[in-house]
Amino acid sequence: MSKGRILSIQSHVAFGYVGGKAAVFPLQCLGYDVDVVNTVNFSNHSGYGRFGGSKARGDELAKIFSIMEENHLLQPERLLTAVLGDAGKLYVAPDVIPIYRSMLPLASIITPNWFEVEVLTDIEISDLFSLRKAIRALHHVHRVPNVVISSIPLKPWLMEALPPHARIPSPEEDGDKTIPYLLCISSSAEDEGKGDSPSAVHIECIPCIPGYFSGVGDLFSALVLAHFKPPLQEPIDTKNTANGTVENALSSAVAHALIKTHAILHLTHTYALSLPESERQPTDDELDQKDQDRKVRRMKGRELRLVQGQDIIRGTVTVEHTGKVMDPWLGFWDE
Amino acid sequence: MSKGRILSIQSHVAFGYVGGKAAVFPLQCLGYDVDVVNTVNFSNHSGYGRFGGSKARGDELAKIFSIMEENHLLQPERLLTAVLGDAGKLYVAPDVIPIYRSMLPLASIITPNWFEVEVLTDIEISDLFSLRKAIRALHHVHRVPNVVISSIPLKPWLMEALPPHARIPSPEEDGDKTIPYLLCISSSAEDEGKGDSPSAVHIECIPCIPGYFSGVGDLFSALVLAHFKPPLQEPIDTKNTANGTVENALSSAVAHALIKTHAILHLTHTYALSLPESERQPTDDELDQKDQDRKVRRMKGRELRLVQGQDIIRGTVTVEHTGKVMDPWLGFWDE
Repeated sequence: MSKGRILSIQSHVAFGYVGGKAAVFPLQCLGYDVDVVNTVNFSNHSGYGRFGGSKARGDELAKIFSIMEENHLLQPERLLTAVLGDAGKLYVAPDVIPIYRSMLPLASIITPNWFEVEVLTDIEISDLFSLRKAIRALHHVHRVPNVVISSIPLKPWLMEALPPHARIPSPEEDGDKTIPYLLCISSSAEDEGKGDSPSAVHIECIPCIPGYFSGVGDLFSALVLAHFKPPLQEPIDTKNTANGTVENALSSAVAHALIKTHAILHLTHTYALSLPESERQPTDDELDQKDQDRKVRRMKGRELRLVQGQDIIRGTVTVEHTGKVMDPWLGFWDE
Repeated sequence: MSKGRILSIQSHVAFGYVGGKAAVFPLQCLGYDVDVVNTVNFSNHSGYGRFGGSKARGDELAKIFSIMEENHLLQPERLLTAVLGDAGKLYVAPDVIPIYRSMLPLASIITPNWFEVEVLTDIEISDLFSLRKAIRALHHVHRVPNVVISSIPLKPWLMEALPPHARIPSPEEDGDKTIPYLLCISSSAEDEGKGDSPSAVHIECIPCIPGYFSGVGDLFSALVLAHFKPPLQEPIDTKNTANGTVENALSSAVAHALIKTHAILHLTHTYALSLPESERQPTDDELDQKDQDRKVRRMKGRELRLVQGQDIIRGTVTVEHTGKVMDPWLGFWDE
């Protein structure tokens, strides 16, 4: 039950589950002692419209770290910190992007969404060529051995590029609405820093759950970190599974993280549907503008059900897709 | 699994388990959504000697609360906040004592240790008469319906005052060292505010685990709160148990909290004993003074094993005394 220490440097909100509040409890449930440094102390996440509190100043954070260092308490096995933005919108000031970029070589794993990949690499992902280029840049320019693109919309070009066995049967039809899918891609470059040989790429198609949930990326990256068993910890990191697909340490961690994140989202979505209609109004910027409480009610009803789903996180209950592994994308690097 | 919301207003440390770090995870494990407002953001607890970070200013806290209020997010069913000091030493500035005292009528339950009882009531507890007087003052002057004195040294006067069935058989002998006991007292005044009829008093003797552990009071009070089922939630709050003793909502919650706290302490103590000798040096102010790292190593080895003992907190494993109830002290109020 003792898995070691993780240092989590993230934002804190009093109410709800984003940043550290979405990451720390799951890590603890999975047996890690988590050292928690709060970069902000806010009331709730920004999606509520009304939010606030205080940001830790640089010198305040430096003081905490220097005392921890003096006390020999800054020796975590793993470090978790947060991401940049989503859906075309930055959560951080543009001038910190170069700083993030310069720190990439220090990371063992990154879990950007498609937008963050574009921001970090300056490459617009519009076809298989640019996708390859972006992943190659993250491995070989920014020297990150393990790259997970947590979500990228499954547009027609991407759907057609997928290997036949990984293609979803056909977009599920819900009345006349096509349910969209997201693709998750993991890419593990075992020779990172030593050559330019192709990485091992794995994929998983994930059906979208309608509506917007906050903290999903924070939960997902925490779960990837928690489930990642680097080769040093477990000598055999590549194994043939029962159905003949080949997993590595990264794809195995991502598979666990996807299954659990999806199950938590499903639980949250089901809960949101059970609320009175006034608390589950669809996103409508115009109506939200007129009645700010409308937005607040929606956000509140869609906070992740982490506490209620803790058995999912712990892996003590069977959920949809339990045991599923990611598909290898064998020809990914073939030009 | 959905038990409602608790608002926790406590100190935060990055490393280790005191204040909010000792309370929030257990509450989450027991199914509560916890809203977490940090009063300080420190590196580690003060027992390490070197500690620091920043305290939230009054206006920063006020801002967080006012936004939560505006967003209708300040509607917890329960509120948990911290205590004053221990073993003759105040953790807070003396001038806040009157403020704490003035807020007592707002509390449903308080869990002071003997020192905090003395500070709050201004009564020195030196015999059964003064103990009665202090508990009476907390109920009828300060209007707290449920009082738990979490620990009071079992001195000869107290041992002799105990009802015969509750007396410990005889102090256990460990070589020629007498293992000391603490007494935990719960007192539930059902008619609080309406009269002066005697409260229901329950007791439990707890063998001391050697050495000092931090965060124990914070864990204990969180567990009492988590397990407390007020009469409104559970109509029958007084029941005859199998062995004929009578429990009420308070004594039942305290019994659970004592068993779990004791089991976590036992786990922590066992872990500390497994460390190399250099990391489990006994308390010695003189040696600590010469080598500050000596103290740091000891503190680090004695951080509560909450993550490793989460099944204890969740109640999914049987531990020593599982199912044990508190003894009623029937003649407590008889002069």
